[in-house]
Amino acid sequence: MSQPAVVLLSGGLDSATVLAIARSQGYACHALSFDYGQRHGAELRAAERVADAFGVVERKRIHIGLDAIGGSALTDAAIAVPDQPQEGVIPVTYVPARNTVFLAFALGWAEVLGSTDIFIGVNAVDYSGYPDCRPAFIQAFETLANLATKAGVEGARFRIHTPLIDLSKAEIIRAGTRLGVDYGLTVSCYSADPDGRACGVCDACRLRAAGFTAAGLPDPTRYRHAR
Amino acid sequence: MSQPAVVLLSGGLDSATVLAIARSQGYACHALSFDYGQRHGAELRAAERVADAFGVVERKRIHIGLDAIGGSALTDAAIAVPDQPQEGVIPVTYVPARNTVFLAFALGWAEVLGSTDIFIGVNAVDYSGYPDCRPAFIQAFETLANLATKAGVEGARFRIHTPLIDLSKAEIIRAGTRLGVDYGLTVSCYSADPDGRACGVCDACRLRAAGFTAAGLPDPTRYRHAR
Repeated sequence: MSQPAVVLLSGGLDSATVLAIARSQGYACHALSFDYGQRHGAELRAAERVADAFGVVERKRIHIGLDAIGGSALTDAAIAVPDQPQEGVIPVTYVPARNTVFLAFALGWAEVLGSTDIFIGVNAVDYSGYPDCRPAFIQAFETLANLATKAGVEGARFRIHTPLIDLSKAEIIRAGTRLGVDYGLTVSCYSADPDGRACGVCDACRLRAAGFTAAGLPDPTRYRHAR
Repeated sequence: MSQPAVVLLSGGLDSATVLAIARSQGYACHALSFDYGQRHGAELRAAERVADAFGVVERKRIHIGLDAIGGSALTDAAIAVPDQPQEGVIPVTYVPARNTVFLAFALGWAEVLGSTDIFIGVNAVDYSGYPDCRPAFIQAFETLANLATKAGVEGARFRIHTPLIDLSKAEIIRAGTRLGVDYGLTVSCYSADPDGRACGVCDACRLRAAGFTAAGLPDPTRYRHAR
């Protein structure tokens, strides 16, 4: 019987690739998504499509009130999503403590499942400058996980798997393509329409489109406007 | 102008004392409570009464779906709350990753407020055996907080204040009484009725009652049954 793992699944390109990698390593995947006041639900519907396409053991969507805290263009309607990348600064799409919150819930679910393996699609190369995508953050969370839990006290050693952390967007796309990911199911855009069609101009769209170009693969993204 | 702090406020005896301590240290207190599928709402109403009594700057209640994960007598109706303390084991009232989740949200709100100070009422003496109440866990979370956030990258140093961590229940009650806490407003019982009256027999009730006895102070707790 395969080992259970919790896979954080946003519905974007990166986490879909992570799910494919976790499955290829033989894990029984439990997909965890969050409804956290994102500006659109297209991402969550994409997460469900991706989870179903990969035949996960179980998928769970947890509502969390990150919008009550605000402080980000992704959770506060009063802050605009920029249409130009800002060099050298952490962008306004940074959501305070988001990956800490996500990993905390994943840890709780993993403990209930008797699992010690959590997969997250953070990336420190094309990572948009988010502090909670760095290897040092992930290592600190592993340390915390072993101290935070009954399982840890009893000797379990949690592992936060970050298979994308050192990959370029093009390398991620090539890896997922080899494992059969249909990127047409995924939504990366910060401002996707309700049908999941991308704006083509936000940071996330630019990074994604450049990745397909660099990988030499066709871009299956559905855009709102002809490009 | 006083410094802002986020104070985790459950509505119980410990967190009410922590709020009083934070205020006595001059912090402008922002009280954070969670609706996480607890078995009763009496605790949340108690949190509101305590926050109002202390004149906090702001109080926030965030809904989080810990009940979707289960794994605890406090979040899963299929697991009974024990009426006898179990020596030497972590009790079934342990909620997987609860304090990790709570502190993650507190960190996010603190960052939005421009605060680096978070108060939590964990206690390692009469602590019921929860792993996420130990000093090593708190230290690991501080390390994580500085790596997880934009504020940390920019040089802020977060501090998780645990003023109760080395106090006995009696010492906590004496400290709070000196600072004017009305413990009649608070609810500690795992099985309080909708009006906030305590069962008198669960672990939390026993620990609380013994604390008032040891402190030599009258117990203002409202019980369902005469004692």
